[in-house]
Amino acid sequence: MLDAHGYAVPDAASPFAPFSFERRDPRPNDVVIAISHCGVCHSDLHTARSEWGGTVYPCVPGHEIVGHVTEVGSEVTGFKPGDTVGVGCMVDSCKHCDACNQGLEQYCENGFTGTYNGPAQETGGNTYGGYSDTIVVREDFVLRVTHPENQLAAVAPLLCAGITTWSPLRHWKVGPGMKVGIVGIGGLGHMGIKLARALGAEVVAFTTSPDKKADAIALGAHEVVVSREKAEMKAHRGTFDFILNTVAAPHDLDPFLLLLKRDGTLCLVGVPAEPHPSPSVANLIFKRRSLAGSLIGGIAETQEMLDFCAEHQIVSDIEPIAIQDIDQAYERMLKSDVKYRFVIDMDSLQPGG
Amino acid sequence: MLDAHGYAVPDAASPFAPFSFERRDPRPNDVVIAISHCGVCHSDLHTARSEWGGTVYPCVPGHEIVGHVTEVGSEVTGFKPGDTVGVGCMVDSCKHCDACNQGLEQYCENGFTGTYNGPAQETGGNTYGGYSDTIVVREDFVLRVTHPENQLAAVAPLLCAGITTWSPLRHWKVGPGMKVGIVGIGGLGHMGIKLARALGAEVVAFTTSPDKKADAIALGAHEVVVSREKAEMKAHRGTFDFILNTVAAPHDLDPFLLLLKRDGTLCLVGVPAEPHPSPSVANLIFKRRSLAGSLIGGIAETQEMLDFCAEHQIVSDIEPIAIQDIDQAYERMLKSDVKYRFVIDMDSLQPGG
Repeated sequence: MLDAHGYAVPDAASPFAPFSFERRDPRPNDVVIAISHCGVCHSDLHTARSEWGGTVYPCVPGHEIVGHVTEVGSEVTGFKPGDTVGVGCMVDSCKHCDACNQGLEQYCENGFTGTYNGPAQETGGNTYGGYSDTIVVREDFVLRVTHPENQLAAVAPLLCAGITTWSPLRHWKVGPGMKVGIVGIGGLGHMGIKLARALGAEVVAFTTSPDKKADAIALGAHEVVVSREKAEMKAHRGTFDFILNTVAAPHDLDPFLLLLKRDGTLCLVGVPAEPHPSPSVANLIFKRRSLAGSLIGGIAETQEMLDFCAEHQIVSDIEPIAIQDIDQAYERMLKSDVKYRFVIDMDSLQPGG
Repeated sequence: MLDAHGYAVPDAASPFAPFSFERRDPRPNDVVIAISHCGVCHSDLHTARSEWGGTVYPCVPGHEIVGHVTEVGSEVTGFKPGDTVGVGCMVDSCKHCDACNQGLEQYCENGFTGTYNGPAQETGGNTYGGYSDTIVVREDFVLRVTHPENQLAAVAPLLCAGITTWSPLRHWKVGPGMKVGIVGIGGLGHMGIKLARALGAEVVAFTTSPDKKADAIALGAHEVVVSREKAEMKAHRGTFDFILNTVAAPHDLDPFLLLLKRDGTLCLVGVPAEPHPSPSVANLIFKRRSLAGSLIGGIAETQEMLDFCAEHQIVSDIEPIAIQDIDQAYERMLKSDVKYRFVIDMDSLQPGG
């Protein structure tokens, strides 16, 4: 077994504390990664505090992982020591169901293995995530990173925030000639703006905070609408091909449904703790609109996204933190006081780091 | 002007009574139709009683119209006196917006003219529907009927119940190799079963009434599931490509969302008086499912549906009534006591009819 060091919560109510544990010895198809950075996703907080239930403790969150390969199993062909790599929300899946066969492991019919708090496919043991110095991952779930080394911290959030917005943008074929809305300018939304813009769409960002307008334009939005302003909303009625809604807090979906053209789709990527108000059926029927959902993304499309981002010089806007500051970061994240993602510099784990 | 005779309600609370009125003299592009039969749609009742608001009185409902051409305007090229024709939910639209240009007049961006209770495009006057002996309709909104003459009564409901189910089945490309659900076995649902079966899909009907099982099989369903039986529902979880939900009464959509495969769609065609319980966002996200709506159908696809039905010998299952029995028919419709559509025989309007 390999010694690993990270930060864990021992239960739902306690702060993080240093945690030493073991990673499995690499199997023939495994890649061993020295983690350099890990992004801090809101899901980490939900899981650490068992807000969705079902958290197994101790819990080591983190699924926006970048680092370097230190060792590979005997059958690994795609990676070698020294390679710069990433790991996202999944570290395994059945790889034989219809979804896996189509490269959509996130919809694995037998359940994918989450990078943390997942039962491992073969052992059933609990998985530990990226708030740690090393991780052992099946080759099929390791991504190549080709961004410059000095951007690695800002690449980390692409592994969840990036792919979670990329996958629906691609699935609904966002590109030139389309008018696309991005609701919410946070960790996910700021990536949605960058990616939709780079894909060639006309991008309108929606926020409840007028003071985020300038930021959204800087991120790449052609226009910003304050969604509480009815006149601003009405001016866009019936004009959108696709709206990606990144807001998980319960809110009225109808004002956004009304913005869609005939056959337009409002896609949700956040699960609210309480249900949204029930959307109007008439708003769906009268323009044949759809309300849809999308979950992270498959491995092949994650690689596609990383390559696209490297080519288009896209990274996340981040605030680097030391791992010792993770509890404080969670408190600030709860207040949306971050532009737009905290990323742990794993050097901080080292003595004197 | 042309003399017309029908039945109207004078206000939301009164029963139907004989009503004489005038139809416009045919314009160059108009077709004059002697109505032989008119189906009775639940929308007729909602409108007659102003349950959706906005009803203009007197109100002559009816938008499942069949009959014969008696006269055509000078520019009409597609119809001649004696032709058997149909008229559905629309008698006009702007004909120049993007939706109209695509043959999707039901989504006309300037608003289509309903066959009844609509402001007419040019005059703004109130339209009177098919509970009457004659109607004058713009050629572009008249459909050819090629069924045998002795089936005309049973053809009438195709003009609304038929097209309302046909349009989404076609839009979502229902055909061989697909597993399709039809929720509700009423006026719309019984057509959905027949059409989905004829399109080559595997058809499962859903009902809350175990005593409708045999009927649904007779209509063409391969299987019938009592939606209140959790074990029956669970056995179908994750297996449907498309589910057409014809039930307008508020109900929980989640049990049907759960039946969909990845990328499946639950399409609603009924607007509930009160909202459905809010559907689970997780059920949308975890298999990238869609909740959609669909509104009647365009003229071109209505013609396609009529031709398909003639070819496949499909008509509606009906109970013919005299127009004098319309109030009683509404009361029975409210109790779902009809298999599956009342159709008014307009001969009953004649003295001694």
